[in-house]
Amino acid sequence: MKNVTVALIQMMVIDDKEKNLATARSMIKKAAAQGANIVVLPEMFCCPYENKSFIQNKEPRGGRVWNMLSQAAAENKVYLVGGSMPEEDREGRLYNTSFVFGPDGREIAVCRKMHLFDIDVPGGQYFKESDVFSAGDKITVVSTEYGNFGVAICFDIRFPELSRLMALEGASMIIVPGAFNMTTGPAHWELLFRSRALDNQLFTFGCAPAQNTASSYVSYGNSIAVSPWGTVLGRLGFEEGILLQTVDLDEIEKYRSQLPLMKNRRKDLYRIEFIGYY
Amino acid sequence: MKNVTVALIQMMVIDDKEKNLATARSMIKKAAAQGANIVVLPEMFCCPYENKSFIQNKEPRGGRVWNMLSQAAAENKVYLVGGSMPEEDREGRLYNTSFVFGPDGREIAVCRKMHLFDIDVPGGQYFKESDVFSAGDKITVVSTEYGNFGVAICFDIRFPELSRLMALEGASMIIVPGAFNMTTGPAHWELLFRSRALDNQLFTFGCAPAQNTASSYVSYGNSIAVSPWGTVLGRLGFEEGILLQTVDLDEIEKYRSQLPLMKNRRKDLYRIEFIGYY
Repeated sequence: MKNVTVALIQMMVIDDKEKNLATARSMIKKAAAQGANIVVLPEMFCCPYENKSFIQNKEPRGGRVWNMLSQAAAENKVYLVGGSMPEEDREGRLYNTSFVFGPDGREIAVCRKMHLFDIDVPGGQYFKESDVFSAGDKITVVSTEYGNFGVAICFDIRFPELSRLMALEGASMIIVPGAFNMTTGPAHWELLFRSRALDNQLFTFGCAPAQNTASSYVSYGNSIAVSPWGTVLGRLGFEEGILLQTVDLDEIEKYRSQLPLMKNRRKDLYRIEFIGYY
Repeated sequence: MKNVTVALIQMMVIDDKEKNLATARSMIKKAAAQGANIVVLPEMFCCPYENKSFIQNKEPRGGRVWNMLSQAAAENKVYLVGGSMPEEDREGRLYNTSFVFGPDGREIAVCRKMHLFDIDVPGGQYFKESDVFSAGDKITVVSTEYGNFGVAICFDIRFPELSRLMALEGASMIIVPGAFNMTTGPAHWELLFRSRALDNQLFTFGCAPAQNTASSYVSYGNSIAVSPWGTVLGRLGFEEGILLQTVDLDEIEKYRSQLPLMKNRRKDLYRIEFIGYY
Protein backbone atom coordinates (compact mmCIF):
# COMPACT_ATOMS: atom_id res chain seq x y z
CA MET A 1 0.00 0.00 0.00
CA LYS A 2 1.35 3.35 -1.01
CA ASN A 3 -1.50 5.71 -0.42
CA VAL A 4 -1.74 9.33 -1.45
CA THR A 5 -4.72 11.60 -0.97
CA VAL A 6 -5.38 14.14 -3.69
CA ALA A 7 -7.86 16.98 -3.24
CA LEU A 8 -9.40 18.66 -6.28
CA ILE A 9 -10.72 22.10 -5.39
CA GLN A 10 -13.70 22.73 -7.65
CA MET A 11 -14.16 26.37 -6.62
CA MET A 12 -16.53 28.97 -7.98
CA VAL A 13 -14.50 31.57 -9.91
CA ILE A 14 -16.06 35.04 -10.12
CA ASP A 15 -14.99 38.40 -11.52
CA ASP A 16 -13.31 39.47 -8.27
CA LYS A 17 -9.71 38.45 -7.76
CA GLU A 18 -9.68 39.16 -4.01
CA LYS A 19 -12.62 36.92 -3.40
CA ASN A 20 -11.21 34.18 -5.63
CA LEU A 21 -7.95 34.20 -3.72
CA ALA A 22 -9.80 34.06 -0.41
CA THR A 23 -11.93 31.16 -1.64
CA ALA A 24 -8.88 29.27 -2.84
CA ARG A 25 -7.07 29.83 0.43
CA SER A 26 -9.92 28.66 2.60
CA MET A 27 -10.63 25.61 0.47
CA ILE A 28 -6.95 24.59 0.45
CA LYS A 29 -7.03 24.77 4.26
CA LYS A 30 -10.17 22.69 4.39
CA ALA A 31 -8.73 20.04 2.05
CA ALA A 32 -5.54 19.81 4.10
CA ALA A 33 -7.59 19.42 7.28
CA GLN A 34 -9.34 16.49 5.61
CA GLY A 35 -6.00 14.79 5.03
CA ALA A 36 -4.97 15.82 1.52
CA ASN A 37 -1.30 15.36 0.59
CA ILE A 38 -1.62 17.02 -2.80
CA VAL A 39 -4.09 19.87 -3.34
CA VAL A 40 -5.07 21.01 -6.82
CA LEU A 41 -6.73 24.25 -7.89
CA PRO A 42 -8.57 24.65 -11.19
CA GLU A 43 -7.39 26.37 -14.35
CA MET A 44 -7.65 30.17 -14.06
CA PHE A 45 -8.83 30.03 -10.48
CA CYS A 46 -8.19 33.72 -9.89
CA CYS A 47 -10.04 35.33 -12.80
CA PRO A 48 -12.77 34.65 -15.34
CA TYR A 49 -11.84 32.59 -18.36
CA GLU A 50 -11.80 35.39 -20.96
CA ASN A 51 -8.97 36.86 -22.96
CA LYS A 52 -9.56 40.40 -21.69
CA SER A 53 -9.60 39.16 -18.11
CA PHE A 54 -6.31 37.33 -18.64
CA ILE A 55 -4.69 40.62 -19.66
CA GLN A 56 -6.21 42.54 -16.74
CA ASN A 57 -5.10 39.92 -14.22
CA LYS A 58 -1.64 39.07 -15.49
CA GLU A 59 1.07 38.84 -12.85
CA PRO A 60 4.73 37.89 -12.84
CA ARG A 61 6.18 34.79 -11.22
CA GLY A 62 6.85 35.83 -7.62
CA GLY A 63 3.86 38.19 -7.65
CA ARG A 64 0.85 38.32 -5.40
CA VAL A 65 -0.93 35.17 -6.52
CA TRP A 66 2.32 33.25 -6.55
CA ASN A 67 3.03 34.36 -2.97
CA MET A 68 -0.43 33.43 -1.76
CA LEU A 69 0.04 29.94 -3.21
CA SER A 70 3.47 29.53 -1.69
CA GLN A 71 2.17 30.55 1.74
CA ALA A 72 -0.89 28.34 1.51
CA ALA A 73 1.29 25.32 0.64
CA ALA A 74 3.60 26.01 3.59
CA GLU A 75 0.87 26.81 6.13
CA ASN A 76 -0.99 23.62 5.28
CA LYS A 77 2.10 21.46 4.61
CA VAL A 78 0.78 20.14 1.30
CA TYR A 79 1.97 19.86 -2.26
CA LEU A 80 -0.01 22.47 -4.13
CA VAL A 81 -0.69 22.47 -7.86
CA GLY A 82 -1.71 26.09 -8.16
CA GLY A 83 -4.34 25.66 -10.84
CA SER A 84 -3.33 28.19 -13.43
CA MET A 85 -3.06 31.95 -13.81
CA PRO A 86 -2.07 34.46 -16.50
CA GLU A 87 1.69 34.79 -16.01
CA GLU A 88 3.64 37.65 -17.58
CA ASP A 89 7.29 36.98 -18.22
CA ARG A 90 10.07 39.58 -18.32
CA GLU A 91 9.65 40.10 -22.04
CA GLY A 92 5.96 40.85 -21.61
CA ARG A 93 4.72 37.53 -23.01
CA LEU A 94 1.72 35.94 -21.32
CA TYR A 95 1.37 32.25 -20.44
CA ASN A 96 -1.35 30.12 -18.95
CA THR A 97 0.80 28.86 -16.09
CA SER A 98 0.54 26.44 -13.21
CA PHE A 99 3.01 27.04 -10.38
CA VAL A 100 3.61 24.02 -8.19
CA PHE A 101 4.79 24.25 -4.58
CA GLY A 102 6.16 21.84 -2.01
CA PRO A 103 4.97 21.54 1.62
CA ASP A 104 7.69 23.98 2.63
CA GLY A 105 6.30 26.65 0.32
CA ARG A 106 9.09 26.43 -2.23
CA GLU A 107 8.23 26.45 -5.91
CA ILE A 108 9.09 23.04 -7.36
CA ALA A 109 7.75 23.37 -10.90
CA VAL A 110 6.43 25.84 -13.45
CA CYS A 111 4.08 24.35 -16.02
CA ARG A 112 3.11 26.58 -18.91
CA LYS A 113 0.25 25.36 -21.06
CA MET A 114 1.82 23.76 -24.09
CA HIS A 115 -1.21 23.45 -26.39
CA LEU A 116 -3.32 26.59 -26.61
CA PHE A 117 -7.06 26.25 -26.81
CA ASP A 118 -8.48 27.29 -30.15
CA ILE A 119 -11.96 26.13 -31.01
CA ASP A 120 -14.78 27.23 -33.31
CA VAL A 121 -17.83 24.96 -33.27
CA PRO A 122 -20.81 26.50 -35.13
CA GLY A 123 -23.67 26.76 -32.63
CA GLY A 124 -21.25 25.70 -29.90
CA GLN A 125 -18.07 27.06 -28.37
CA TYR A 126 -15.74 29.73 -29.80
CA PHE A 127 -12.48 30.64 -28.09
CA LYS A 128 -9.02 31.59 -29.25
CA GLU A 129 -6.46 31.47 -26.48
CA SER A 130 -3.60 31.93 -28.90
CA ASP A 131 -4.72 35.54 -29.42
CA VAL A 132 -3.33 36.32 -25.98
CA PHE A 133 -1.03 33.56 -24.76
CA SER A 134 2.29 32.18 -25.81
CA ALA A 135 2.69 28.43 -25.47
CA GLY A 136 4.96 26.66 -23.01
CA ASP A 137 7.67 24.33 -24.20
CA LYS A 138 8.48 22.02 -21.28
CA ILE A 139 7.05 18.78 -19.97
CA THR A 140 6.44 18.92 -16.23
CA VAL A 141 6.93 15.82 -14.09
CA VAL A 142 7.45 16.41 -10.38
CA SER A 143 9.11 13.92 -8.05
CA THR A 144 7.74 13.67 -4.51
CA GLU A 145 7.57 11.19 -1.64
CA TYR A 146 3.99 10.55 -2.82
CA GLY A 147 5.17 9.41 -6.23
CA ASN A 148 5.87 11.34 -9.39
CA PHE A 149 3.15 13.37 -10.99
CA GLY A 150 2.90 15.12 -14.32
CA VAL A 151 1.14 18.47 -14.63
CA ALA A 152 -0.59 19.63 -17.79
CA ILE A 153 -3.22 22.27 -18.40
CA CYS A 154 -6.65 21.62 -19.90
CA PHE A 155 -6.25 21.38 -23.71
CA ASP A 156 -2.91 19.64 -23.17
CA ILE A 157 -4.79 16.48 -22.14
CA ARG A 158 -6.06 16.15 -25.71
CA PHE A 159 -2.65 15.24 -27.05
CA PRO A 160 -1.74 11.62 -26.32
CA GLU A 161 1.96 12.22 -26.93
CA LEU A 162 2.24 14.42 -23.84
CA SER A 163 0.66 11.92 -21.43
CA ARG A 164 2.71 9.10 -22.92
CA LEU A 165 5.94 11.04 -22.48
CA MET A 166 5.01 11.77 -18.86
CA ALA A 167 4.37 8.07 -18.26
CA LEU A 168 7.70 7.18 -19.85
CA GLU A 169 9.35 9.72 -17.54
CA GLY A 170 7.91 7.79 -14.60
CA ALA A 171 4.73 9.69 -13.72
CA SER A 172 2.29 7.72 -11.54
CA MET A 173 -0.33 10.44 -11.77
CA ILE A 174 -1.24 13.11 -14.29
CA ILE A 175 -2.81 16.16 -12.70
CA VAL A 176 -4.66 18.58 -14.96
CA PRO A 177 -6.20 21.88 -13.95
CA GLY A 178 -8.74 22.35 -16.73
CA ALA A 179 -11.90 24.16 -17.68
CA PHE A 180 -13.83 22.35 -20.35
CA ASN A 181 -17.08 24.00 -21.44
CA MET A 182 -20.65 22.94 -22.06
CA THR A 183 -19.80 21.82 -25.62
CA THR A 184 -16.57 19.91 -25.03
CA GLY A 185 -17.22 18.87 -21.44
CA PRO A 186 -20.16 16.51 -21.95
CA ALA A 187 -18.60 15.22 -25.18
CA HIS A 188 -14.98 14.66 -24.18
CA TRP A 189 -13.94 15.39 -20.56
CA GLU A 190 -14.49 11.95 -19.05
CA LEU A 191 -13.38 10.17 -22.23
CA LEU A 192 -10.01 11.92 -22.20
CA PHE A 193 -9.22 11.35 -18.53
CA ARG A 194 -10.28 7.72 -18.77
CA SER A 195 -8.31 6.99 -21.92
CA ARG A 196 -5.08 8.69 -20.78
CA ALA A 197 -5.31 6.72 -17.51
CA LEU A 198 -5.97 3.42 -19.25
CA ASP A 199 -3.43 3.81 -22.06
CA ASN A 200 -0.65 4.77 -19.67
CA GLN A 201 -1.80 2.70 -16.69
CA LEU A 202 -1.62 5.51 -14.18
CA PHE A 203 -4.00 7.75 -12.23
CA THR A 204 -5.42 10.90 -13.79
CA PHE A 205 -7.03 13.87 -12.10
CA GLY A 206 -8.90 16.75 -13.74
CA CYS A 207 -9.72 19.79 -11.62
CA ALA A 208 -12.22 22.32 -12.99
CA PRO A 209 -13.89 25.48 -11.74
CA ALA A 210 -17.48 25.10 -10.56
CA GLN A 211 -20.10 26.11 -13.07
CA ASN A 212 -20.79 29.85 -13.11
CA THR A 213 -23.62 30.51 -15.55
CA ALA A 214 -23.01 34.27 -15.22
CA SER A 215 -19.64 33.87 -17.00
CA SER A 216 -19.09 34.35 -20.70
CA TYR A 217 -17.27 30.99 -20.64
CA VAL A 218 -19.28 28.43 -18.69
CA SER A 219 -17.17 25.70 -17.08
CA TYR A 220 -18.39 22.13 -17.21
CA GLY A 221 -17.09 21.39 -13.70
CA ASN A 222 -17.12 17.62 -13.17
CA SER A 223 -13.71 17.38 -11.52
CA ILE A 224 -12.66 13.77 -11.88
CA ALA A 225 -10.28 11.06 -10.65
CA VAL A 226 -9.60 7.94 -12.73
CA SER A 227 -7.76 4.67 -11.99
CA PRO A 228 -5.12 2.91 -14.17
CA TRP A 229 -7.90 0.53 -15.28
CA GLY A 230 -9.82 3.52 -16.70
CA THR A 231 -12.45 3.48 -13.95
CA VAL A 232 -13.90 6.74 -12.66
CA LEU A 233 -13.06 6.74 -8.93
CA GLY A 234 -14.71 10.02 -8.04
CA ARG A 235 -16.42 12.87 -9.79
CA LEU A 236 -18.17 16.09 -8.83
CA GLY A 237 -21.10 17.74 -10.59
CA PHE A 238 -21.44 21.42 -11.50
CA GLU A 239 -21.41 22.79 -7.93
CA GLU A 240 -18.55 24.06 -5.81
CA GLY A 241 -16.93 21.34 -3.75
CA ILE A 242 -13.82 19.33 -2.96
CA LEU A 243 -13.17 15.90 -4.44
CA LEU A 244 -10.95 14.12 -1.93
CA GLN A 245 -9.58 10.93 -3.44
CA THR A 246 -7.19 8.49 -1.82
CA VAL A 247 -5.42 6.19 -4.26
CA ASP A 248 -2.93 3.35 -3.78
CA LEU A 249 -0.01 3.85 -6.14
CA ASP A 250 0.90 0.15 -5.80
CA GLU A 251 -2.14 -0.57 -7.98
CA ILE A 252 -0.19 0.72 -10.95
CA GLU A 253 2.20 -2.23 -10.87
CA LYS A 254 -0.70 -4.61 -10.33
CA TYR A 255 -2.47 -3.42 -13.49
CA ARG A 256 0.76 -3.27 -15.48
CA SER A 257 1.55 -6.90 -14.67
CA GLN A 258 -1.99 -8.15 -15.39
CA LEU A 259 -2.24 -6.32 -18.70
CA PRO A 260 1.30 -5.48 -19.81
CA LEU A 261 0.60 -2.46 -21.97
CA MET A 262 3.56 -0.34 -20.98
CA LYS A 263 5.91 -3.32 -21.32
CA ASN A 264 4.51 -4.55 -24.64
CA ARG A 265 4.81 -1.30 -26.53
CA ARG A 266 6.72 -2.05 -29.75
CA LYS A 267 9.77 0.02 -29.00
CA ASP A 268 11.48 -1.69 -31.93
CA LEU A 269 8.83 -0.36 -34.34
CA TYR A 270 7.88 3.11 -33.14
CA ARG A 271 9.53 5.77 -31.10
CA ILE A 272 8.15 8.77 -29.31
CA GLU A 273 10.48 11.35 -27.90
CA PHE A 274 10.67 14.85 -26.51
CA ILE A 275 12.77 16.98 -28.85
CA GLY A 276 12.61 20.34 -27.05
CA TYR A 277 15.06 21.69 -24.48
CA TYR A 278 15.01 20.96 -20.77
CA MET B 1 -20.25 14.72 -49.23
CA LYS B 2 -17.89 11.83 -49.59
CA ASN B 3 -19.87 8.89 -48.38
CA VAL B 4 -18.63 5.40 -47.73
CA THR B 5 -20.63 2.53 -46.31
CA VAL B 6 -18.82 0.12 -44.05
CA ALA B 7 -20.35 -3.21 -43.00
CA LEU B 8 -19.16 -4.92 -39.84
CA ILE B 9 -19.97 -8.63 -39.92
CA GLN B 10 -20.57 -9.70 -36.34
CA MET B 11 -20.81 -13.40 -37.12
CA MET B 12 -21.12 -16.35 -34.75
CA VAL B 13 -17.84 -18.30 -34.83
CA ILE B 14 -18.11 -21.97 -33.93
CA ASP B 15 -15.73 -24.94 -33.84
CA ASP B 16 -16.39 -25.88 -37.47
CA LYS B 17 -14.31 -24.16 -40.10
CA GLU B 18 -16.57 -25.15 -43.02
CA LYS B 19 -19.58 -23.59 -41.39
CA ASN B 20 -17.67 -20.46 -40.39
CA LEU B 21 -16.52 -19.96 -43.97
CA ALA B 22 -20.05 -20.47 -45.25
CA THR B 23 -21.43 -17.99 -42.70
CA ALA B 24 -18.80 -15.41 -43.63
CA ARG B 25 -19.47 -15.84 -47.31
CA SER B 26 -23.21 -15.47 -47.01
CA MET B 27 -22.97 -12.46 -44.69
CA ILE B 28 -20.48 -10.71 -47.00
CA LYS B 29 -22.98 -11.19 -49.84
CA LYS B 30 -25.81 -9.83 -47.73
CA ALA B 31 -23.78 -6.77 -46.69
CA ALA B 32 -22.83 -6.04 -50.28
CA ALA B 33 -26.47 -6.33 -51.34
CA GLN B 34 -27.28 -3.72 -48.69
CA GLY B 35 -24.81 -1.30 -50.28
CA ALA B 36 -21.56 -1.84 -48.39
CA ASN B 37 -18.38 -0.54 -50.03
CA ILE B 38 -16.06 -1.97 -47.40
CA VAL B 39 -16.91 -5.22 -45.62
CA VAL B 40 -15.14 -6.28 -42.43
CA LEU B 41 -14.98 -9.71 -40.80
CA PRO B 42 -14.11 -10.22 -37.14
CA GLU B 43 -10.84 -11.40 -35.65
CA MET B 44 -10.41 -15.19 -36.01
CA PHE B 45 -13.64 -15.57 -37.95
CA CYS B 46 -12.78 -19.08 -39.10
CA CYS B 47 -11.92 -20.82 -35.82
CA PRO B 48 -12.41 -20.55 -32.07
CA TYR B 49 -10.19 -18.10 -30.23
CA GLU B 50 -7.90 -20.63 -28.52
CA ASN B 51 -4.22 -21.31 -28.96
CA LYS B 52 -4.75 -24.99 -29.84
CA SER B 53 -7.36 -24.05 -32.41
CA PHE B 54 -4.98 -21.53 -33.99
CA ILE B 55 -2.46 -24.32 -34.53
CA GLN B 56 -5.08 -26.74 -35.92
CA ASN B 57 -6.44 -24.15 -38.33
CA LYS B 58 -3.26 -22.50 -39.55
CA GLU B 59 -3.04 -21.90 -43.29
CA PRO B 60 -0.56 -20.22 -45.60
CA ARG B 61 -1.19 -17.02 -47.51
CA GLY B 62 -2.83 -18.15 -50.75
CA GLY B 63 -4.50 -21.08 -48.98
CA ARG B 64 -8.13 -22.00 -48.73
CA VAL B 65 -9.37 -19.23 -46.48
CA TRP B 66 -7.36 -16.67 -48.42
CA ASN B 67 -8.95 -17.88 -51.67
CA MET B 68 -12.45 -17.78 -50.27
CA LEU B 69 -11.89 -14.18 -49.18
CA SER B 70 -10.45 -13.17 -52.53
CA GLN B 71 -13.42 -14.70 -54.37
CA ALA B 72 -15.97 -13.16 -52.02
CA ALA B 73 -14.45 -9.71 -52.55
CA ALA B 74 -14.51 -10.12 -56.32
CA GLU B 75 -17.98 -11.65 -56.54
CA ASN B 76 -19.47 -8.88 -54.43
CA LYS B 77 -17.22 -6.09 -55.75
CA VAL B 78 -16.32 -4.82 -52.29
CA TYR B 79 -13.20 -4.04 -50.36
CA LEU B 80 -12.89 -6.85 -47.87
CA VAL B 81 -10.97 -6.71 -44.61
CA GLY B 82 -10.75 -10.42 -44.00
CA GLY B 83 -11.03 -10.37 -40.23
CA SER B 84 -8.09 -12.41 -39.14
CA MET B 85 -6.88 -15.99 -39.33
CA PRO B 86 -3.88 -18.02 -38.15
CA GLU B 87 -1.36 -17.60 -40.97
CA GLU B 88 1.66 -19.85 -41.28
CA ASP B 89 4.63 -18.39 -43.12
CA ARG B 90 7.28 -20.33 -45.06
CA GLU B 91 9.48 -20.65 -42.01
CA GLY B 92 6.64 -22.19 -39.99
CA ARG B 93 5.97 -19.13 -37.87
CA LEU B 94 2.35 -18.32 -37.07
CA TYR B 95 0.76 -14.88 -37.22
CA ASN B 96 -2.66 -13.46 -36.40
CA THR B 97 -3.20 -12.01 -39.86
CA SER B 98 -5.77 -9.91 -41.67
CA PHE B 99 -5.67 -10.21 -45.46
CA VAL B 100 -7.28 -7.29 -47.26
CA PHE B 101 -8.71 -7.54 -50.78
CA GLY B 102 -9.88 -5.10 -53.42
CA PRO B 103 -13.18 -5.34 -55.37
CA ASP B 104 -11.32 -7.23 -58.11
CA GLY B 105 -10.29 -9.92 -55.64
CA ARG B 106 -6.63 -8.94 -55.54
CA GLU B 107 -4.88 -8.86 -52.18
CA ILE B 108 -4.02 -5.25 -51.37
CA ALA B 109 -2.62 -5.59 -47.86
CA VAL B 110 -1.42 -8.09 -45.28
CA CYS B 111 -1.79 -6.92 -41.68
CA ARG B 112 -0.15 -9.09 -39.05
CA LYS B 113 -1.10 -8.33 -35.45
CA MET B 114 1.68 -6.21 -34.04
CA HIS B 115 0.91 -6.36 -30.33
CA LEU B 116 0.15 -9.85 -29.05
CA PHE B 117 -2.53 -10.28 -26.43
CA ASP B 118 -1.17 -11.34 -23.07
CA ILE B 119 -3.40 -10.86 -20.06
CA ASP B 120 -3.73 -12.35 -16.58
CA VAL B 121 -6.45 -10.76 -14.45
CA PRO B 122 -7.11 -12.74 -11.23
CA GLY B 123 -10.76 -13.80 -11.29
CA GLY B 124 -11.00 -12.46 -14.85
CA GLN B 125 -9.38 -13.25 -18.17
CA TYR B 126 -6.20 -15.26 -18.81
CA PHE B 127 -4.74 -15.60 -22.29
CA LYS B 128 -1.25 -15.73 -23.75
CA GLU B 129 -1.22 -15.27 -27.50
CA SER B 130 2.54 -14.93 -27.56
CA ASP B 131 2.82 -18.65 -26.73
CA VAL B 132 1.75 -19.38 -30.31
CA PHE B 133 2.06 -16.31 -32.49
CA SER B 134 4.89 -14.19 -33.74
CA ALA B 135 4.19 -10.49 -33.95
CA GLY B 136 3.87 -8.45 -37.14
CA ASP B 137 6.15 -5.54 -37.82
CA LYS B 138 4.36 -3.34 -40.38
CA ILE B 139 1.79 -0.58 -40.17
CA THR B 140 -1.06 -1.13 -42.62
CA VAL B 141 -2.73 1.84 -44.32
CA VAL B 142 -4.64 1.09 -47.51
CA SER B 143 -5.45 3.69 -50.13
CA THR B 144 -8.81 3.37 -51.91
CA GLU B 145 -11.30 5.53 -53.77
CA TYR B 146 -13.28 5.52 -50.51
CA GLY B 147 -10.46 7.12 -48.59
CA ASN B 148 -7.48 5.62 -46.82
CA PHE B 149 -8.01 3.19 -44.01
CA GLY B 150 -5.67 1.69 -41.47
CA VAL B 151 -6.06 -1.91 -40.37
CA ALA B 152 -5.04 -3.16 -36.94
CA ILE B 153 -6.01 -6.23 -34.96
CA CYS B 154 -7.67 -6.20 -31.57
CA PHE B 155 -4.96 -5.61 -28.92
CA ASP B 156 -3.23 -3.24 -31.36
CA ILE B 157 -5.93 -0.64 -30.65
CA ARG B 158 -4.62 -0.31 -27.10
CA PHE B 159 -1.42 1.39 -28.25
CA PRO B 160 -1.99 5.06 -29.08
CA GLU B 161 1.23 5.29 -31.09
CA LEU B 162 -0.12 2.98 -33.78
CA SER B 163 -3.36 4.89 -34.37
CA ARG B 164 -1.47 8.18 -34.35
CA LEU B 165 1.00 6.92 -36.94
CA MET B 166 -1.88 5.74 -39.13
CA ALA B 167 -3.51 9.17 -38.87
CA LEU B 168 -0.23 10.86 -39.76
CA GLU B 169 0.00 8.54 -42.77
CA GLY B 170 -3.35 9.89 -43.91
CA ALA B 171 -5.85 7.32 -42.68
CA SER B 172 -9.45 8.56 -42.59
CA MET B 173 -10.66 5.40 -40.93
CA ILE B 174 -9.13 2.79 -38.64
CA ILE B 175 -10.68 -0.64 -39.06
CA VAL B 176 -10.07 -3.20 -36.35
CA PRO B 177 -11.15 -6.83 -36.37
CA GLY B 178 -11.12 -7.60 -32.66
CA ALA B 179 -12.44 -9.95 -30.02
CA PHE B 180 -12.47 -8.38 -26.60
CA ASN B 181 -13.80 -10.60 -23.81
CA MET B 182 -16.22 -10.25 -20.94
CA THR B 183 -13.54 -8.71 -18.70
CA THR B 184 -11.94 -6.22 -21.10
CA GLY B 185 -14.98 -5.60 -23.30
CA PRO B 186 -17.29 -3.88 -20.82
CA ALA B 187 -14.31 -2.06 -19.29
CA HIS B 188 -12.43 -0.82 -22.36
CA TRP B 189 -13.86 -1.60 -25.81
CA GLU B 190 -15.97 1.52 -26.35
CA LEU B 191 -13.47 3.73 -24.52
CA LEU B 192 -10.66 2.72 -26.86
CA PHE B 193 -12.58 3.16 -30.10
CA ARG B 194 -13.95 6.51 -28.95
CA SER B 195 -10.62 7.86 -27.79
CA ARG B 196 -8.65 6.80 -30.87
CA ALA B 197 -11.34 8.41 -33.05
CA LEU B 198 -11.38 11.64 -31.05
CA ASP B 199 -7.62 12.00 -30.61
CA ASN B 200 -6.94 11.43 -34.29
CA GLN B 201 -10.14 12.99 -35.63
CA LEU B 202 -11.06 10.11 -37.87
CA PHE B 203 -13.60 7.28 -37.98
CA THR B 204 -12.96 4.04 -36.12
CA PHE B 205 -14.63 0.66 -36.59
CA GLY B 206 -14.34 -2.39 -34.36
CA CYS B 207 -15.68 -5.70 -35.69
CA ALA B 208 -16.09 -8.57 -33.21
CA PRO B 209 -17.47 -12.11 -33.34
CA ALA B 210 -20.94 -12.58 -31.87
CA GLN B 211 -21.02 -13.91 -28.36
CA ASN B 212 -20.72 -17.68 -28.18
CA THR B 213 -21.05 -18.74 -24.56
CA ALA B 214 -20.05 -22.30 -25.50
CA SER B 215 -16.51 -21.08 -26.30
CA SER B 216 -13.61 -21.14 -23.89
CA TYR B 217 -13.01 -17.50 -24.84
CA VAL B 218 -16.28 -15.58 -24.82
CA SER B 219 -16.36 -12.60 -27.20
CA TYR B 220 -17.90 -9.34 -26.00
CA GLY B 221 -19.39 -8.65 -29.43
CA ASN B 222 -20.55 -5.01 -29.52
CA SER B 223 -19.16 -4.19 -32.96
CA ILE B 224 -18.92 -0.42 -33.09
CA ALA B 225 -18.53 2.62 -35.36
CA VAL B 226 -17.33 5.96 -33.97
CA SER B 227 -17.14 9.48 -35.47
CA PRO B 228 -14.17 11.90 -35.40
CA TRP B 229 -15.98 13.75 -32.57
CA GLY B 230 -15.83 10.54 -30.50
CA THR B 231 -19.54 9.81 -30.86
CA VAL B 232 -20.77 6.24 -31.16
CA LEU B 233 -22.57 6.13 -34.51
CA GLY B 234 -23.69 2.52 -34.35
CA ARG B 235 -23.21 -0.48 -32.17
CA LEU B 236 -24.43 -4.06 -32.01
CA GLY B 237 -25.09 -6.15 -28.91
CA PHE B 238 -23.99 -9.74 -28.30
CA GLU B 239 -26.00 -11.34 -31.13
CA GLU B 240 -25.02 -12.15 -34.68
CA GLY B 241 -25.74 -9.32 -37.09
CA ILE B 242 -24.39 -6.74 -39.54
CA LEU B 243 -23.68 -3.17 -38.56
CA LEU B 244 -24.06 -1.16 -41.75
CA GLN B 245 -22.74 2.35 -41.23
CA THR B 246 -22.55 5.10 -43.84
CA VAL B 247 -20.14 7.90 -42.96
CA ASP B 248 -19.23 11.14 -44.70
CA LEU B 249 -15.44 11.46 -44.86
CA ASP B 250 -15.78 15.22 -45.42
CA GLU B 251 -16.73 15.45 -41.75
CA ILE B 252 -13.10 14.83 -40.87
CA GLU B 253 -12.02 18.18 -42.26
CA LYS B 254 -14.98 19.87 -40.60
CA TYR B 255 -13.99 18.59 -37.15
CA ARG B 256 -10.30 19.26 -37.76
CA SER B 257 -11.00 22.89 -38.59
CA GLN B 258 -13.38 23.43 -35.66
CA LEU B 259 -11.03 21.86 -33.13
CA PRO B 260 -7.55 21.86 -34.67
CA LEU B 261 -6.03 18.94 -32.81
CA MET B 262 -4.08 17.41 -35.65
CA LYS B 263 -2.75 20.82 -36.69
CA ASN B 264 -1.87 21.99 -33.18
CA ARG B 265 0.25 19.03 -32.19
CA ARG B 266 3.59 20.39 -30.94
CA LYS B 267 5.76 18.97 -33.66
CA ASP B 268 8.55 21.21 -32.40
CA LEU B 269 8.46 19.54 -28.96
CA TYR B 270 7.70 15.88 -29.53
CA ARG B 271 8.15 13.45 -32.35
CA ILE B 272 6.59 10.11 -33.04
CA GLU B 273 7.92 7.96 -35.82
CA PHE B 274 7.89 4.50 -37.27
CA ILE B 275 11.37 3.04 -37.02
CA GLY B 276 10.79 -0.42 -38.52
CA TYR B 277 11.17 -1.44 -42.16
CA TYR B 278 8.56 -1.03 -44.85
